[in-house]
Formats: sequence, structure tokens, C-alpha cells
Amino acid sequence: MNKIITIGREFGSGGREFGRKLAEVLNFPYYDREIISEIAKRTSLSEKYVQNIAEHKPLIPFPIHTGQTFWTVVPDYGQTVHAEQHNIIREVAAKSDCVIVGRGADYILRELNPFRIFIYSEMSCKIKRCKNNAGKDYEKGAELTEKELTKRIEQINKARREYYEFYTGQKWGDKNNYDLCINTSYIDPGNMAEAIKALII
Amino acid sequence: MNKIITIGREFGSGGREFGRKLAEVLNFPYYDREIISEIAKRTSLSEKYVQNIAEHKPLIPFPIHTGQTFWTVVPDYGQTVHAEQHNIIREVAAKSDCVIVGRGADYILRELNPFRIFIYSEMSCKIKRCKNNAGKDYEKGAELTEKELTKRIEQINKARREYYEFYTGQKWGDKNNYDLCINTSYIDPGNMAEAIKALII
Repeated sequence: MNKIITIGREFGSGGREFGRKLAEVLNFPYYDREIISEIAKRTSLSEKYVQNIAEHKPLIPFPIHTGQTFWTVVPDYGQTVHAEQHNIIREVAAKSDCVIVGRGADYILRELNPFRIFIYSEMSCKIKRCKNNAGKDYEKGAELTEKELTKRIEQINKARREYYEFYTGQKWGDKNNYDLCINTSYIDPGNMAEAIKALII
Repeated sequence: MNKIITIGREFGSGGREFGRKLAEVLNFPYYDREIISEIAKRTSLSEKYVQNIAEHKPLIPFPIHTGQTFWTVVPDYGQTVHAEQHNIIREVAAKSDCVIVGRGADYILRELNPFRIFIYSEMSCKIKRCKNNAGKDYEKGAELTEKELTKRIEQINKARREYYEFYTGQKWGDKNNYDLCINTSYIDPGNMAEAIKALII
């Protein structure tokens, strides 16, 4: 059976950095935004649109860009995107060992007994990481004040929680749903990936 | 500064086994029941009595054995035992690198930035571990039915939670109070100790 590692993560806690590094040291394929690109390809929707749907529970009004901008209620597209996401996650898990970041993969693949990791950190560390990564992962990290950044981080994590809980019926970030919870406030995600490698191989 | 590792743990989740193994692979002194023995020595109270006080928040009636058995309310002894426990934990942390299991050491030593680990597992795994370790760590593991064992595990963990929360004002087992939370349901504590070694040294 393939070794599947799923990574849930609070926004700003270095989950993506950790996931990339873990996939690198394990020499496993890594899936994160790649899943969004694949959904966009299969559905002919824009990547930006897919990403926004894929990160929110249904019934969020969102503008679709098709030359003109208009607002819609997205339950139909939401279901399509969610179903494709579900399919793709199952496909990549069946194909080979892999690291999958976010998207409720721990729950979707629960019958395959994935190794379930959750990455979190203190708010002060999230803010610092967003500022340091401004222009890379967090486009607006440099432009925002600390107060604005805190609000943005809270909003994104609220959306992640709602999405996860809507689709899984489980509590997001509850340690009982994971094998390992890593607080990256004082642990370097890169070092942690090296340590975890010893556990998985 | 000494490297201090503190291990909080749910009863039955293999926290002691993990702590011993981690101390062994790191070649660090290990403190668990050793602290109880030292308190008993310093206070001239029996080890069994000290252990019971040291695992409960104050005002629990408990029989003192001094030839005759009589019941008392223990706030005075509780404070003495707690103060000695606090002193001993500070002393061992000042002396050398070490692994300390339980006793709110993560909070007592918070200014020394210990590496804070919490060990937990699913109830079914706790029961299995208690049964397997019957006669060693868990005297009554073999005698009790699964229902009785579940109740006993819940009682002990309730006492640990109350003790921790009384003395620290923090929520016991809340992942935000730890650097690493390890679910030993599907991870072997021995393998995990080897992995963690790479992170600490």
C-alpha cells in the first residue's frame, strides 16, 4: 500500500514549506496547488475561481470572470469542484506514495490510513512568517499593518475550518484527528521534515 | 542553557515508555517517579501518599497511613508536596539536560523554553496498552473488564486534567500549549523517540 502523508495547516504556520520539504526529503510527489490546476483543467474554470471555491464551504457568492464580472451563488460549481477535488485526491493516492497538503485529504483518504499531520503556530509567528514571505506565498504580507494581517489570517483560517468541518463532520485542528501536531512557533519546519522522515521510511 | 524536554501524557497512551526511550536515545537523565521518591525523602511522607497528593488538585480527602488509618483533608500536605515538587523540578532542570514526565513541568519551567511534548491516543489503544502492560506500569490492567478499565483510565485522566489546570491555569492537552503532540494510536513510541532525537540534538 502506498505511503500517504496528509498535512492540515493553519494559514501562516509554514505548512506548505514543511510539506514541500517533507516531500523533498522523502522523494515523494507533492500535491497542493497542483490539485487546483488539475481541477481547472478538467472543469474549464479559471484557477483563481477554482481556488476560491475549493477553500470555502458551499453557498458563498463569488464573482465569475468571463469578460464581464457578475455575481452568482455557487452550489453547483461548488459541488463540481469538490467532486473533482475528491477524485483527484483519490487518484494521486492510488498512483504512488505522496504528500498532500490541505483539502480534507486526511478524511477523504481515511480508509487508506494516511499519516495525518497538522501544522499550527502562535499568531505572532504567523504574522512574522507572512511578512517574511511577502511576495512569495503571501502576496499582501508587506502591504498590510499587523492588525490587518491578523484579521486576514483569522479570516483565511475561519474559511479553512468551515470548509473542513462542512465536508468532514470533524473538528479542524482537533489533535484527536491527527497522528502528529507540530507547533512551528519554535521548531524549524525544515528540521522537522528531516526528523519525520526517520519515522515514515 | 540546558535542553529540557517535558512530556505531558494521557494515562494509557505510552507517555512513560516514550519518555524513557527518548531519555535513553538522547542520553539525558529521566525524571518521573524519581520526583515522587525525592519528595517522600524530603518530607518524610510515604511515597504512595505523596504520589496520590501529587496527582490531585488540593482538598481531596485521602487516608494517611501511620500504623492506624485515618482520613484527613490535605490542603497543608498538598501545598508542601506541591512546593517540593516545584523545587525539585527546578533543581533538576538547572543541573543538566533532562526529560521530565508530567507534573506540569512544561509550565513550571516555561521561562527556560522547554521542548514541550504531549502524548495521547485513542481509548481503544489505551485499553490495549493497559492490558499488555498489566503487572508492570498498570497493576490492575489484567483484572478489570474493558468497561472498568475505560472508567479507570477516564478517572485518572480527569485527575491529571484537574491537577494541571488548577496549578497552571492552562488547558491540559490543548495543542497550543505544546510544541509537538503525538498520537501513539498508530505510531510506535520507540520509533518516535528516535525521530525526535534528530530534532533535538
